[in-house]
Amino acid sequence: MDRGLLYGVGVGPGDSELITLKAVRILKEVDIIAVPKSKYESNSTAFDIVKDYIENKKIIELIFPMSFDKEELYKSWQVSADIVMKSLDLGKNIAFITLGDPTIYSTFMYLNKIIVSSGYKTIIIPGITSFCACAAETGINLGENNDSIIIIPSASDIGDLEKKLDSFQTVILMKFRKNFEEIKKFLKAKDLIKNTVIVEKCTMTDQKVYRDIENLNKDKLEYFSTMIINKRMV
Amino acid sequence: MDRGLLYGVGVGPGDSELITLKAVRILKEVDIIAVPKSKYESNSTAFDIVKDYIENKKIIELIFPMSFDKEELYKSWQVSADIVMKSLDLGKNIAFITLGDPTIYSTFMYLNKIIVSSGYKTIIIPGITSFCACAAETGINLGENNDSIIIIPSASDIGDLEKKLDSFQTVILMKFRKNFEEIKKFLKAKDLIKNTVIVEKCTMTDQKVYRDIENLNKDKLEYFSTMIINKRMV
Repeated sequence: MDRGLLYGVGVGPGDSELITLKAVRILKEVDIIAVPKSKYESNSTAFDIVKDYIENKKIIELIFPMSFDKEELYKSWQVSADIVMKSLDLGKNIAFITLGDPTIYSTFMYLNKIIVSSGYKTIIIPGITSFCACAAETGINLGENNDSIIIIPSASDIGDLEKKLDSFQTVILMKFRKNFEEIKKFLKAKDLIKNTVIVEKCTMTDQKVYRDIENLNKDKLEYFSTMIINKRMV
Repeated sequence: MDRGLLYGVGVGPGDSELITLKAVRILKEVDIIAVPKSKYESNSTAFDIVKDYIENKKIIELIFPMSFDKEELYKSWQVSADIVMKSLDLGKNIAFITLGDPTIYSTFMYLNKIIVSSGYKTIIIPGITSFCACAAETGINLGENNDSIIIIPSASDIGDLEKKLDSFQTVILMKFRKNFEEIKKFLKAKDLIKNTVIVEKCTMTDQKVYRDIENLNKDKLEYFSTMIINKRMV
């Protein structure tokens, strides 16, 4: 029997219309949808996006704990990879759904690395990134002419943010909540508060846009928050 | 009569399936499709992507010359804005199609600025960026964990590329052809040639992937080329 194929499918930022025709076709064609979760009891935003396109499809849930313990993380990837490879060996095609795009800070690529190095074939379907959706919703031009753009993830040390703010036209901070007060201090010192927008749960039904971040409290922010600092914008 | 709406619609990198459901719906609903071109006689890749979705729809071509002359550019944006606003005044809804995403180095945003500041309402529909498509096609993880990603456009001075290469995990160079020999020299000096991939016309029928860029000649490269330098990749 031929081995199955694993697809890493980007399902976009939240609005279920912001998924590509290709992603929908793949989701309908495969045998199994793999849904990543941090715990069994938690909801999956990626699943909510695609649920209307995959009626009666077999679902497997894969657990990727929110942890900074490398050993625990690696073990969870290996457990998920084993589950996936077992189905691939049976000739089943699997679509692993992932919020945004699979190559931008997605758990899929950890799984992909293990699966590919075990000799299986995988295909990645790109998705709309959250930062492009945030820019679209707020009318911000992320890059024009000779602007460079920098994308900084939540796990990044923001100690050198000041240096980065000096050298780039646009700075995108993803899931920045834990560093919010420190970032705000920087922005105030650089007089960039007015050039900053925060979008929370972009394109989801409960999206929020904050343009006055000076008076915004960290505790009000959700996990899925993106900050755009654009020097040209006022 | 109510004024029409202007949509800036990202149509993705080239594959006509890599467009969102939302973009296709908007293209079918509007009265007019606006197609940007550099000259009347040139082809439009964005139009090729959407042509099967917009049969019998009224088309207007807008000319944005490839020029570094700011006055000529500004004049062309104003001429296009006037054409668009005339139709909006007649209550027509217009979709301006743009390759990739409208907020990433797209001509749409110049037009958008004029139209918005003239009091019209516009809506931006995000698209799949060329760099996400390139990463998907080549299996490269653009960002994981605490990696920062930088995006450098064709018009950018690459004089400080060396400094940027030192501080970032992933560097994306868009439409870099004119600086190719200089970039190659940098990459050789930094021993990063093996960490570099070039994708030309990504997801189009004549896509090419170059993994051995040391022996690649500038004259072989097309305009729509993207380079990804990823330090983790080998």
